Amino acid sequence: MNRDKLIEIIKERKSLLCVGLDPDFELIPNHLKKNDDWIFDFNKSIIDSTKDLCVAYKPNLAFYEKYGSKGWSAFERTVEYIGDTHFIIADAKRGDIGNSSKYYAQSFFENTTCDAVTVSPYMGSDSVEPFLNYKDKWAVILTLTSNPGAKDLQLTKVNDKLTIERSDIQNRQRWMKLFEHVTFQIKEWGTSYNTMLVVGATKADYFQKIRKIVPDHFLLVPGIGTQGGNLDLVLENGLNSDFGLLINVGRDILYSSSGDDFDIKARERSIVYQTLMEKTLKDKKLI
Amino acid sequence: MNRDKLIEIIKERKSLLCVGLDPDFELIPNHLKKNDDWIFDFNKSIIDSTKDLCVAYKPNLAFYEKYGSKGWSAFERTVEYIGDTHFIIADAKRGDIGNSSKYYAQSFFENTTCDAVTVSPYMGSDSVEPFLNYKDKWAVILTLTSNPGAKDLQLTKVNDKLTIERSDIQNRQRWMKLFEHVTFQIKEWGTSYNTMLVVGATKADYFQKIRKIVPDHFLLVPGIGTQGGNLDLVLENGLNSDFGLLINVGRDILYSSSGDDFDIKARERSIVYQTLMEKTLKDKKLI
Repeated sequence: MNRDKLIEIIKERKSLLCVGLDPDFELIPNHLKKNDDWIFDFNKSIIDSTKDLCVAYKPNLAFYEKYGSKGWSAFERTVEYIGDTHFIIADAKRGDIGNSSKYYAQSFFENTTCDAVTVSPYMGSDSVEPFLNYKDKWAVILTLTSNPGAKDLQLTKVNDKLTIERSDIQNRQRWMKLFEHVTFQIKEWGTSYNTMLVVGATKADYFQKIRKIVPDHFLLVPGIGTQGGNLDLVLENGLNSDFGLLINVGRDILYSSSGDDFDIKARERSIVYQTLMEKTLKDKKLI
Repeated sequence: MNRDKLIEIIKERKSLLCVGLDPDFELIPNHLKKNDDWIFDFNKSIIDSTKDLCVAYKPNLAFYEKYGSKGWSAFERTVEYIGDTHFIIADAKRGDIGNSSKYYAQSFFENTTCDAVTVSPYMGSDSVEPFLNYKDKWAVILTLTSNPGAKDLQLTKVNDKLTIERSDIQNRQRWMKLFEHVTFQIKEWGTSYNTMLVVGATKADYFQKIRKIVPDHFLLVPGIGTQGGNLDLVLENGLNSDFGLLINVGRDILYSSSGDDFDIKARERSIVYQTLMEKTLKDKKLI
């Protein structure tokens, strides 16, 4: 899916919502637990009850690989079921030397019809490049994540001559945090038409720094709901004139009820999020 | 497999060789191309012809995921076929927030009998920890990789107060490169009994810096052979009194011949590497 089409469906559905498809056996309703194909059937119900309220789905591969090749098969069928009406992000956090990354790209962009893959930046440009060689496909690069360990690398102080020279902050400071360095790198590696950045909702205080470096890029924002991120702050600091935000909610929608009404409750929670988003988009005269 | 057992099989086989099981349809012999189960059959032949010469196998998941759930099934059967005679590294370069990393760990340590998984450090301690909660299992953490893009993040200059304080270099320099910072972090996150470091063979000039920080840890060294790393330099700078090295060779062994004799040629190349390793281990009186 290209950028124009993504912007179009955001306008149509008045929503920035991305539903995280993270099927967890411990949390699904009892009546599904007897079903051999519970992963696919759970996903199918969630998709059916949320599809008019969201613009993207993000299956996290960890939840599928947990069940090996059977889980992978359920992932493949889920992506096929979603079709081309939504932006599909394989949340796989891949990244390897060029040749191997090329195969990961083939896996998600040729074997399945995912639009995007999340990628770790640690191995640098040639680990990301193979994902950018596909028309209308995207690399969504980990920049500042929502977990406590984000501080270990992402918040360390970095002084890289090239980045400092490229930036407009050279006369004001000699330092930046690693996630800012990564943001500058991402701007070099791709464009706002084939790269997005993962920025955790729990880091809303850093959103402005990132927006200053990449005013046009879409940000994929996990961490709303169960992880405690603040939706209003994310909207306030993250939106740009082309929207520029995909906001992921997983558990808070998927497991709002563990009863037979799980899909109805998932829809109700999605409506809450979509309504909040629509209100802000209208307030800001973006729709 | 625990550290003592790993050291024992290195002594027995007089080898530090890890064979990279990276099945590539373009490069396998023609007679296997007609075979639906070519991935498993190719791996089986390579394993049969190299198993007395190596101590570890490293399937890179990219080569399997390229074929989706079918590829995953071939990966699972390959791991099962290897059994418990070798240290098995799932080269998957995973890493996610704690809950998701836990599922990746279950995938490789419970669904299959891999001994180790390669992990990216970008998301920090809680993305690595779930892999360390298994007895006799290992996280092999990307530290300094063999690809050109390694320079983009891994070689940037970092100044992190905590790391500088922990290190013994505080009075001599204010800077370290990010891969050194990561090396200090790895030393905090785990022990030499459950963590290893990925250090590319093409970066032999940095081996001494890493060895100084982690004298006891095993290093997994890719990049020998086709990627141009120098085996002698790696042995000279990487060995410790418990060996401390697993040296991966992939393409140079797997695709030494594209004819029917591919397994015989793979064995011949493995003998060349094993002989060089045995000689150095004897010269250094380690065996």
